[in-house]
Amino acid sequence: MLRVYGSLESGNCYKVRLLLRQLGREYEWIEIDILKGESRTPAFLAMNPNGRVPLLEYAPGKHLAESNAILNYLADGTPLLPADPETRARILQWMFFEQYSHEPFIATSRFYLHFLKQPDKYRQALEEKSGPGYGALDVMENHLRRSDYLVAGRYSIADIALYAYTHVAHEGGFDLGRYQAIPAWLDRVKRQPGTIGITEI
Amino acid sequence: MLRVYGSLESGNCYKVRLLLRQLGREYEWIEIDILKGESRTPAFLAMNPNGRVPLLEYAPGKHLAESNAILNYLADGTPLLPADPETRARILQWMFFEQYSHEPFIATSRFYLHFLKQPDKYRQALEEKSGPGYGALDVMENHLRRSDYLVAGRYSIADIALYAYTHVAHEGGFDLGRYQAIPAWLDRVKRQPGTIGITEI
Repeated sequence: MLRVYGSLESGNCYKVRLLLRQLGREYEWIEIDILKGESRTPAFLAMNPNGRVPLLEYAPGKHLAESNAILNYLADGTPLLPADPETRARILQWMFFEQYSHEPFIATSRFYLHFLKQPDKYRQALEEKSGPGYGALDVMENHLRRSDYLVAGRYSIADIALYAYTHVAHEGGFDLGRYQAIPAWLDRVKRQPGTIGITEI
Repeated sequence: MLRVYGSLESGNCYKVRLLLRQLGREYEWIEIDILKGESRTPAFLAMNPNGRVPLLEYAPGKHLAESNAILNYLADGTPLLPADPETRARILQWMFFEQYSHEPFIATSRFYLHFLKQPDKYRQALEEKSGPGYGALDVMENHLRRSDYLVAGRYSIADIALYAYTHVAHEGGFDLGRYQAIPAWLDRVKRQPGTIGITEI
């Protein structure tokens, strides 16, 4: 059976759970407490030398890291990752956008505010992340004004990748109320069969 | 013909030129001066709303952004991106590692030192990026001690993605002299047919 090492507090890990649920795949969940250093133990580093979750064990002793690589692997051959090369490239474009231009600002701000609960300690970092975070949301808003979903007008793993931290952006201090297309898209994603909440297994 | 918008100073853009040369593909290069704001003009934002290079025009009026998405698109069906799902997932794993755990530290440090030439202005940022940057290099070193290339023991677009900023990491203040497997791998990549330098077209 598939095994996933992850943290219920992480949006990156939520992506994998959400996809597995929507694909109807069974899996074993192993909770890793990052704040207690459980992703940096010798045993964990032997599985993922980069010391991060989520981590997928897709066969005994075979591990795959990086949430969006895991989504591509698990969705291959399903309607959530169409075979057409142009669509696949466009899905990857949004996923690299997510990891480079979205997650480091929106997810990290949420980590400071929602989990560490230290707005004063991280005030400068939060201010620095605000502009790029809203910049990423602006890019999404502009795109979603013209399309119901991120790629090819249909639900795909690109939507899962961006939904994970966008739907909780307010927990990082971002005001989604200034957008129209993003909230409508969030509703469309939420209504997909099998959608679960961010802390649900 | 393919058209690539990019900056000759950018390692992300170099990845695309290196691949196109190794694939023997003809293309038109459009130089974009980032420091002069040429990636933020209305005309450019109409092609890539995220305002970044490289940007591939793969058909008239059809654009694809994100260097690693472009590599996957262009290499599809070639030996540099094998069809095996496990290999493809592993290549993506390294590419997401590159954009999340490597580039923001090593490439950004190089930008401060090598292009802006402002070590004093960015001293604190450079100090903060040193640990994670060496952390990424350590992960590569450990892996390359056991394998000649990053994925499946053969040269692929994963090597192109990581080579781009690793072989100029010293320009960002990183000392590659403390590693053994990384320099040997850099030499193997350099010896691939068709390899060009980082500022060559």
